[in-house]
Amino acid sequence: MYQCSLERMTDKITTFSQFGDAGHGGITRYTLSPEDVLARNEFIKRMEAIGAIIEIDDVANVYATLAGSDANAKRIVMGSHSDSVKNGGNYDGILGVLSAMEVLEAVAEQNIPHKHPLTAMIWTNEEGSLYPPAMMVSGVVCYDYLPQDVKGKFKLEDMLQSKSVLDKQTTFGQALDASGFKGEVAKRLSPDNYQCMFEIHIEQGPILEDAGKDIGVVDCVLGMFNYRLRFYGQTVHAGTFPMPKRRDALYAASQAICYLHDEIDKLGYADLVYTTGEIECHPNVHTCVPDEVDFCIDVRHESAEVLAKVLAVVKSCADKTWVGCDCQVDKMWNRDTVYWDESLVGFVKSAAEETGVSHQMVHSGAGHDAQFVAYMMPTTMIFVQSKDGLSHCELEYSSPEQCTAGATVLLNAVLKADAQ
Amino acid sequence: MYQCSLERMTDKITTFSQFGDAGHGGITRYTLSPEDVLARNEFIKRMEAIGAIIEIDDVANVYATLAGSDANAKRIVMGSHSDSVKNGGNYDGILGVLSAMEVLEAVAEQNIPHKHPLTAMIWTNEEGSLYPPAMMVSGVVCYDYLPQDVKGKFKLEDMLQSKSVLDKQTTFGQALDASGFKGEVAKRLSPDNYQCMFEIHIEQGPILEDAGKDIGVVDCVLGMFNYRLRFYGQTVHAGTFPMPKRRDALYAASQAICYLHDEIDKLGYADLVYTTGEIECHPNVHTCVPDEVDFCIDVRHESAEVLAKVLAVVKSCADKTWVGCDCQVDKMWNRDTVYWDESLVGFVKSAAEETGVSHQMVHSGAGHDAQFVAYMMPTTMIFVQSKDGLSHCELEYSSPEQCTAGATVLLNAVLKADAQ
Repeated sequence: MYQCSLERMTDKITTFSQFGDAGHGGITRYTLSPEDVLARNEFIKRMEAIGAIIEIDDVANVYATLAGSDANAKRIVMGSHSDSVKNGGNYDGILGVLSAMEVLEAVAEQNIPHKHPLTAMIWTNEEGSLYPPAMMVSGVVCYDYLPQDVKGKFKLEDMLQSKSVLDKQTTFGQALDASGFKGEVAKRLSPDNYQCMFEIHIEQGPILEDAGKDIGVVDCVLGMFNYRLRFYGQTVHAGTFPMPKRRDALYAASQAICYLHDEIDKLGYADLVYTTGEIECHPNVHTCVPDEVDFCIDVRHESAEVLAKVLAVVKSCADKTWVGCDCQVDKMWNRDTVYWDESLVGFVKSAAEETGVSHQMVHSGAGHDAQFVAYMMPTTMIFVQSKDGLSHCELEYSSPEQCTAGATVLLNAVLKADAQ
Repeated sequence: MYQCSLERMTDKITTFSQFGDAGHGGITRYTLSPEDVLARNEFIKRMEAIGAIIEIDDVANVYATLAGSDANAKRIVMGSHSDSVKNGGNYDGILGVLSAMEVLEAVAEQNIPHKHPLTAMIWTNEEGSLYPPAMMVSGVVCYDYLPQDVKGKFKLEDMLQSKSVLDKQTTFGQALDASGFKGEVAKRLSPDNYQCMFEIHIEQGPILEDAGKDIGVVDCVLGMFNYRLRFYGQTVHAGTFPMPKRRDALYAASQAICYLHDEIDKLGYADLVYTTGEIECHPNVHTCVPDEVDFCIDVRHESAEVLAKVLAVVKSCADKTWVGCDCQVDKMWNRDTVYWDESLVGFVKSAAEETGVSHQMVHSGAGHDAQFVAYMMPTTMIFVQSKDGLSHCELEYSSPEQCTAGATVLLNAVLKADAQ
């Protein structure tokens, strides 16, 4: 069993936390932003320092590869994304990059023998916080292998036109051109050159912490759907229009959010999660009754049957009138549960057992780049405990010891895959 | 009795509807925007054409004055604002300007004798849509006369620093400097030079239409308060965080909106109006449970006692925990009911009777520049019927006949004030 370095891992966490530091303990590091470019350059500098070869594909993914003893063997890749949400933390995404770097650094420092080339990778624009959608670039790279109904969302030409949510003008394509990170399409991750992929990520939930485990051996990514509920009323003046004649779209939407909680909770699935995280209100002026309000609902569960029952509740909103407002229910996207490669999951489990890291099996509720990669090659994930289960916020935290334990499990799991 | 001209009024409505035409039958004409400058220049051009003297004060209010027979008499002013909300209509505000112009044009054309100088006026930034707050400039001009608790909101130095809600950078002061409409402080409306003020406005409610009356003789502006309710929860990931541990600020706010409707309606005041028109959700991302949501509630009624009872309901929200979220209730502003000058109201009523215009007494639910002016000189308002009671939207409509009837009532009421 090989060990990763706590000191080196701590240094990487500290260093990368500076790139996009928003002054409150977390970062805002939109994809391909100047802050992201700093992180990418630091990755390249450190990987070149241990003799890795750097390659960049046409959608700005960066690959750092250490040669193995078999020149004909396919590469084993480890990686995650370097971008964050607005006011995110220092671990979501980047921990997978730092862990992959740590594995290569440990291999180089300890001269660990391996047959396959080992690659550490940065994925571009997983969050989709500046240029939607989320998991944009893994969607593009894995496009040919994705299920038909997922595919439609990730056409390269559409993705290049995705507009900045900030200035509503700059496209992802323009950001790509300006970044200096637009490489060659031939360099993309593909089953022709790569054997399998591992991704380390923070758990983003409280299950490992509640169970007192440092590491999660992940078996699947939960199926989910995302629908948008739109309510149509009438704008009238706040001071002059009698209450009984009003059609207030925000009151309608508020009633619907309460209705969804009531009805979905009645179904009684303890392990179901659903979220109304985003709302838009028009015209959103204190002196106007709102005429259009819409919000999204995101629902996740392993079982397709459970998801179907919840979907029926969501769709039932369109059959009702809400304080005089019509409701329209639109599908945004969905995905089936994606199970990780059994033998890779086994390698992670054995590595955790053999290195004495406390662990348990978990599902992933969040989506990750790895889930798209799973359609084209054997793939798996490792979770590191998240303090208080928090993520996508400045309070995100995993201890240096837990992060190093994750990297150690990854290193040994990768070596098992290498020896296969 | 004198009559205004349907043809001339129709032409003004059509012409001014072009300045800010947003392509759907209405306008977006933010204060001091290029579109607003077009409207102001047209006003000046037409008023100079009938021999009016143009003056501009330091906060861009424009005054066009026709001399009267008594060189020492104070002026009688009529006016309203030229700015609109985003995607507003062709009547809110500007109708009061066009009516004032029409009165001067009728006086000039028909050589109507009058003792006092008569002034048509454009008020700057009534809506506060680009540079909050609403009624900014009447607040500044009437500052010395306002009640102590209203005053605080309208300090000139603060108003000049009010930032554009669009670019979050440009201040009202910068917009003023750039507009070419920054005149002299000495030109401001003041009781030293002005006798009284009349403002015509669309009703913005359905009461006159339901009653089959063209004109409302307004007796007061309803008292109101505006409070902000803020809900504090915790951002966690939509896919990974178990439901029972969540503190979802949007669910909390939705419950509170429903609670407010339930509890306020129980009080049973048929003529009470209240509105939750604006909501902000943070971080407002579909994969995050919201941690901070706040909305405002605007409540209006003539009776201070009724308002106090509703306020108690609003404040009670802070005593509860909403699905694990704390609630904070903050006062934004309030105002007491403002009654118009009795003798001016009498002139309007007599003018409507004598000219045979169908009319009834009404309250104003909306705030208007006139209500601040009422603290410094006798003031009153005239309402013109609004189709379907709609305002602050592109569907705003009052017929040319109704608008002309409003101007005719104004003309004759002004002449009564002139003869006083």
